Amino acid sequence: MKYNFGAGPSILPQEVFKQAAEAVLNFNNTGLSILEISHRAPEFEAVVDEILQLVKDLLNIPEGYSILLLQGGASLQFSMVPMNILAEGQTASYLDSGVWSSKAIKEAKLFGNVNIVASSKEANYTYVPRDYEIPADSAYFHVTSNNTIFGTELFDFPKTDVPIVSDMSSDIFSRVLNIADFGLIYAGAQKNMGPAGLTLVIVKDDLIGKSGRKLPSMLDYKIHADNKSLYNTPAVFSIYASLLNLRWLKAKGGVAQIEKENIAKSEALYAEIDRNPLFKGPCNVEDRSRMNVCFVMENPELDKPFLKFAQERGMVGIKGHRSVGGFRASIYNALPITAVHALIDVMQEFADNNA
Amino acid sequence: MKYNFGAGPSILPQEVFKQAAEAVLNFNNTGLSILEISHRAPEFEAVVDEILQLVKDLLNIPEGYSILLLQGGASLQFSMVPMNILAEGQTASYLDSGVWSSKAIKEAKLFGNVNIVASSKEANYTYVPRDYEIPADSAYFHVTSNNTIFGTELFDFPKTDVPIVSDMSSDIFSRVLNIADFGLIYAGAQKNMGPAGLTLVIVKDDLIGKSGRKLPSMLDYKIHADNKSLYNTPAVFSIYASLLNLRWLKAKGGVAQIEKENIAKSEALYAEIDRNPLFKGPCNVEDRSRMNVCFVMENPELDKPFLKFAQERGMVGIKGHRSVGGFRASIYNALPITAVHALIDVMQEFADNNA
Ligand SMILES: Cc1ncc(COP(=O)(O)O)c(C=O)c1O
Ligand SMILES: Cc1ncc(COP(=O)(O)O)c(C=O)c1O
Ligand SMILES: [Mg+2]
Ligand SMILES: [Mg+2]
Ligand SMILES: [Mg+2]
Ligand SMILES: [Mg+2]
Repeated sequence: MKYNFGAGPSILPQEVFKQAAEAVLNFNNTGLSILEISHRAPEFEAVVDEILQLVKDLLNIPEGYSILLLQGGASLQFSMVPMNILAEGQTASYLDSGVWSSKAIKEAKLFGNVNIVASSKEANYTYVPRDYEIPADSAYFHVTSNNTIFGTELFDFPKTDVPIVSDMSSDIFSRVLNIADFGLIYAGAQKNMGPAGLTLVIVKDDLIGKSGRKLPSMLDYKIHADNKSLYNTPAVFSIYASLLNLRWLKAKGGVAQIEKENIAKSEALYAEIDRNPLFKGPCNVEDRSRMNVCFVMENPELDKPFLKFAQERGMVGIKGHRSVGGFRASIYNALPITAVHALIDVMQEFADNNA
Repeated sequence: MKYNFGAGPSILPQEVFKQAAEAVLNFNNTGLSILEISHRAPEFEAVVDEILQLVKDLLNIPEGYSILLLQGGASLQFSMVPMNILAEGQTASYLDSGVWSSKAIKEAKLFGNVNIVASSKEANYTYVPRDYEIPADSAYFHVTSNNTIFGTELFDFPKTDVPIVSDMSSDIFSRVLNIADFGLIYAGAQKNMGPAGLTLVIVKDDLIGKSGRKLPSMLDYKIHADNKSLYNTPAVFSIYASLLNLRWLKAKGGVAQIEKENIAKSEALYAEIDRNPLFKGPCNVEDRSRMNVCFVMENPELDKPFLKFAQERGMVGIKGHRSVGGFRASIYNALPITAVHALIDVMQEFADNNA
């Protein structure tokens, strides 16, 4: 038995694997593989229609937003966002809450002025900065709503008239949000949405084209919005597998239900980290992520022995990112609470052995 | 029984579907799905190493080239090529031999001067222009080596000191080429390489960075080359399924062997088109593509009846592109000659019924 705590690409429900494998052999009883059907086939257009509707329903997206299914990962959005909505000479404001924020900042600088409203870098990103000002003339305000590497999450989005742009790669579909509070949301699919190779962008229509730049077609939100994400050949399989996963989420009760489970899972694991004398959480308690639970050992000499102990018991992907060290258990939507309990058992057993 | 003549995404070998489906359930006996493994896992790094080596071996790529596994499709390369290798103020020369060439031209114009050396547009792209001049000061010369929509193929690449850039989306891995003749080759994977979601770029190292432009990281060949295409999360599944397909090609005898089969398949089908009084080929005979065989009816009123007749007999994806009309049978590497014979039988049966 393996428990996949990997940070991404990451666990998806077993039934999604089963259905995706079936579709690789025979998609929707067409007698063809999902890998060989045309993206212009009516059967695939139906897939696109259904996933767009599911994203809309699951996230409760109001009218006036476009939902785009792109390629290139969240990293390409670091550039596409300013290309599309930051006009020449304008300033964009960014909150620097982790490695991904700082990469987004670096890419944005190519297209305009970047104003960093606050940064927790000096504290190795162990908290999410609060009490910053967002200049009213910012073209947008960019945040990373969940810091995958450092294990912090932004629970209160600022109230501002500046459009908020959020990198939700590692928390999309994990919690209820008021989409109307955002101008643009983007996410690499490979955590809570589906397999790698797909990037979700949700953008307020009145932001599209705001930069006034003449853009390459493939980097222009307008082109993708006007073509229902079928301007060119999309990531057919990743879209289909994501559809299967979102169907699973809907059948489970949707985002409100999964949020409850995510709270229960993360509370159980943080409780053990706090209780167990061998482990501690490096992050500010109020900012603790429900998706990526980072923990370190009080005695770093036990790092390797614990990793080995846990791996031997089926724990996969718990090594912390090199910028934090220690351990990280990513507990995305598809990870069952039984896996969290299994990890807690391993932590307790290890503590008993090393008491 | 279905025969998939779709233009792309298109047929792959049945054993690739079988192995890909297995990996969706259990990748390499890891107990994990290929959809949930980390792109940083040693097992996936081995996949990348193997596919890079296979591409190199199958195409006989000499030293001094980088092989990149990207996202975004061939359409994104229409822009990435000039961004990376066309300096501000320089001129790039293009051959306009079809819709895809003309799209590439349109995107390049955003980044410099475009010199169209010749165009067959006025003849609805029924031939590949010859006898053009490539100005020696061109930063590169761009061709579409196979015109997927119009069914023409470029069999003689010009001799020039200008680096040749070729969009090989629909002929890569179908015929033996001398890679040293090219500065850059790109291809959407979704014909002869694998499923959609992956884009192959083969670029001569001394061209990388030639434009001198400061580029977004994700659009910079150098970043991808330096990071072995793992700068960010790649299209994991599409890469793996492509590996399976290239293993199949190698086991079959490689590109030289498949080229023979492709010649045999295309000759059989063109012979029937020429012989059969109901059908004719719209393209210049010497330029006829071995991958996309276009044919029209002498009497266009028989278009719909023939399409219905053929579909009822399992022929999939043979409707011609709207810019050509009639029919197009894409007969990529994985399409067995038995499928071509089945189509020929249908054409003959239909002719008998309509004699
Ligand atoms: C919050 C966040 N942003 C961006 C990225 C980069 O995503 P991609 O690899 O899809 O470019 C990641 C990857 O883990 C992430 O967690
Ligand atoms: C020759 C050629 N170039 C470019 C493209 C566009 O490819 P993509 O959809 O991957 O952007 C195609 C698609 O069929 C093609 O055949
Ligand atoms: Mg981070
Ligand atoms: Mg503790
Ligand atoms: Mg064409
Ligand atoms: Mg004839």
